[in-house]
Amino acid sequence: MGSLLEAERVVTGWAARDPSGFLSPYSYTLRKTGPEDVVIKVLYCGVCHTDVHQAKNHLGMSKYPMVPGHEVVGEVVEVGREVSKVRVGDVVGAGVIVGCCRECGSCKANIEQYCNKRIWSYNDVYTDGKPTQGGFASAMVVDQKFVLKIPSGLAPEQAAPLLCAGVTVYSPLRHFGLTKGGLRGAIMGLGGVGHMGVKIAKAMGHHVTVISSSDRKRTEAMDHLGADAYLVSSDEAQMAAAIDSLDYIIDTVPAFHPLEPYLSLLKVDGKLILMGVINQPLQFVTPAVMLGRKTISGSFIGSMDETREMLEFCEKKGLTSMIEMVKMEQINEALERLERNDVRYRFVVDVAGSKLDP
Amino acid sequence: MGSLLEAERVVTGWAARDPSGFLSPYSYTLRKTGPEDVVIKVLYCGVCHTDVHQAKNHLGMSKYPMVPGHEVVGEVVEVGREVSKVRVGDVVGAGVIVGCCRECGSCKANIEQYCNKRIWSYNDVYTDGKPTQGGFASAMVVDQKFVLKIPSGLAPEQAAPLLCAGVTVYSPLRHFGLTKGGLRGAIMGLGGVGHMGVKIAKAMGHHVTVISSSDRKRTEAMDHLGADAYLVSSDEAQMAAAIDSLDYIIDTVPAFHPLEPYLSLLKVDGKLILMGVINQPLQFVTPAVMLGRKTISGSFIGSMDETREMLEFCEKKGLTSMIEMVKMEQINEALERLERNDVRYRFVVDVAGSKLDP
Repeated sequence: MGSLLEAERVVTGWAARDPSGFLSPYSYTLRKTGPEDVVIKVLYCGVCHTDVHQAKNHLGMSKYPMVPGHEVVGEVVEVGREVSKVRVGDVVGAGVIVGCCRECGSCKANIEQYCNKRIWSYNDVYTDGKPTQGGFASAMVVDQKFVLKIPSGLAPEQAAPLLCAGVTVYSPLRHFGLTKGGLRGAIMGLGGVGHMGVKIAKAMGHHVTVISSSDRKRTEAMDHLGADAYLVSSDEAQMAAAIDSLDYIIDTVPAFHPLEPYLSLLKVDGKLILMGVINQPLQFVTPAVMLGRKTISGSFIGSMDETREMLEFCEKKGLTSMIEMVKMEQINEALERLERNDVRYRFVVDVAGSKLDP
Repeated sequence: MGSLLEAERVVTGWAARDPSGFLSPYSYTLRKTGPEDVVIKVLYCGVCHTDVHQAKNHLGMSKYPMVPGHEVVGEVVEVGREVSKVRVGDVVGAGVIVGCCRECGSCKANIEQYCNKRIWSYNDVYTDGKPTQGGFASAMVVDQKFVLKIPSGLAPEQAAPLLCAGVTVYSPLRHFGLTKGGLRGAIMGLGGVGHMGVKIAKAMGHHVTVISSSDRKRTEAMDHLGADAYLVSSDEAQMAAAIDSLDYIIDTVPAFHPLEPYLSLLKVDGKLILMGVINQPLQFVTPAVMLGRKTISGSFIGSMDETREMLEFCEKKGLTSMIEMVKMEQINEALERLERNDVRYRFVVDVAGSKLDP
């Protein structure tokens, strides 16, 4: 199998060709397997909101053709001669980043996600000058630093969303000292990241409140995801009763919203952690943070170390993502549904089980 | 002296009578010395911006007559029978807070400044139902919990501004893990708090940049206060050159300003600490905190424990505030000058050396 790929470097991915974001089959070549490289036959790939933004050039920096996908689980089919981390046959994951400078402060501190020279798994240019292409494809070549073994106790398709959505919520809880049991946390927004937030926080032993603008998601929050409480942010009495009650809020809402009502829910030293990319400025008055020494912060995916730790945590706790599996042929419909939040909670493409070629 | 005060409970302070904020002599009685109480003959009292805001009812919650002053240094002239912390004759300080509930999470964690039932040293109501009155007066009665011995190595008049301005900047450096040598910090705003920021950060062994909107304060920042660098925020080239260079910014600017330019100066995990009460909302876009895991936070004075520690730190480092001494008769002029920032850097009233009575 390895030798087959070595001879036959042409792969098929599903690429966007323009800002319509419509994906269709696209042939391209993978780089020759370098000494540190791992060749992965893609099995599953999660679908993240960022895939929609990139495919449709919402961030104004898309280059086409572009094969999205950065929640990749696959089987190792070939390894470079220096690769020690994984072996042929291993089920591995790759995430949002496939390269970094290895020399800056962030790289040296093993928080390579903050390296200013990080290389994205798609819509970027690799060190060889070739465009990077993501996981909506039959195979990928990834430096071993950015590959992780999926623990045997995790179903590969369930593990895919952990590689971005999972670690995105695990990392700040870890970094900001919010992993110990008994904390009271809240999650705003029940998308891919938010639903993992509820599950991970619950698995850490936290009392978890889901905050939403209406009563609409109460049943899914409480019954399906196992939240402990549900708070309707438009209900002034409920909000007043919850003042000073939370150690943290993970805010995944990707649109403008006022911050003061949520800052007021935090205890002294409470933390508001923003996960949604919002280019319309958010606002707050300074007494809302000063009186209570509260912090507003944000976080961006997680490091490889944190990703490994999170995968082990999920295996140990028997924790998985909640997914809807689709074939590659359904990807355009899935992207459309994702754009209107019509998914509980993550689409995962069954890449290996799909007909990729035209 | 103690017995004199015990017999003669009437004291004279200088009080504002209405929102003009004009201070004039005012007679009132101090409460009977309780078992935990310390009677202080006021020697010096610093003048804080808050005194202006309170005297003029800028915060809409002023009660008159009001004797301001919360950076109090005095001599103990009487103590209650349970007082063990100080003795008659000691030089002691009292600050912004004179009471707290002693039962809430903040009180139990010895961060009583965040107690929701804290009692302000003036413009508040004490547990006995009487209004609290501040340090622009011949004497005060303060519970021993809120009194600290001034270390013998500190000049009492220099110590006064440490009790609010000093601890206000010391506390967040301490709390947010920013005390170790070699850090690169910046101070915005060179008022009472800002100038102590430069001095305390320098004494911690930090590389300190003063950030200002114009070149006007360069000499005082570099030559008088000992800053290492001076950055003009309106100079785009200077700002671009300073990107990703700071571990923290202490932002004492008490008026609206954009946050993104300053967030961009922070390194990964850098901290923007807001110290100015600004009721016009400040703004930022979420990527400015997410990409670099930066935090925006604030802090409010400091605990008694931190105040004690800060006083010891200042004594050890030979660090003092820079003050302009005035008599009580000049207080109205001083408040006026303070309002237009015409002071380098803190007015201190020589209370004991002033004629207080009309």
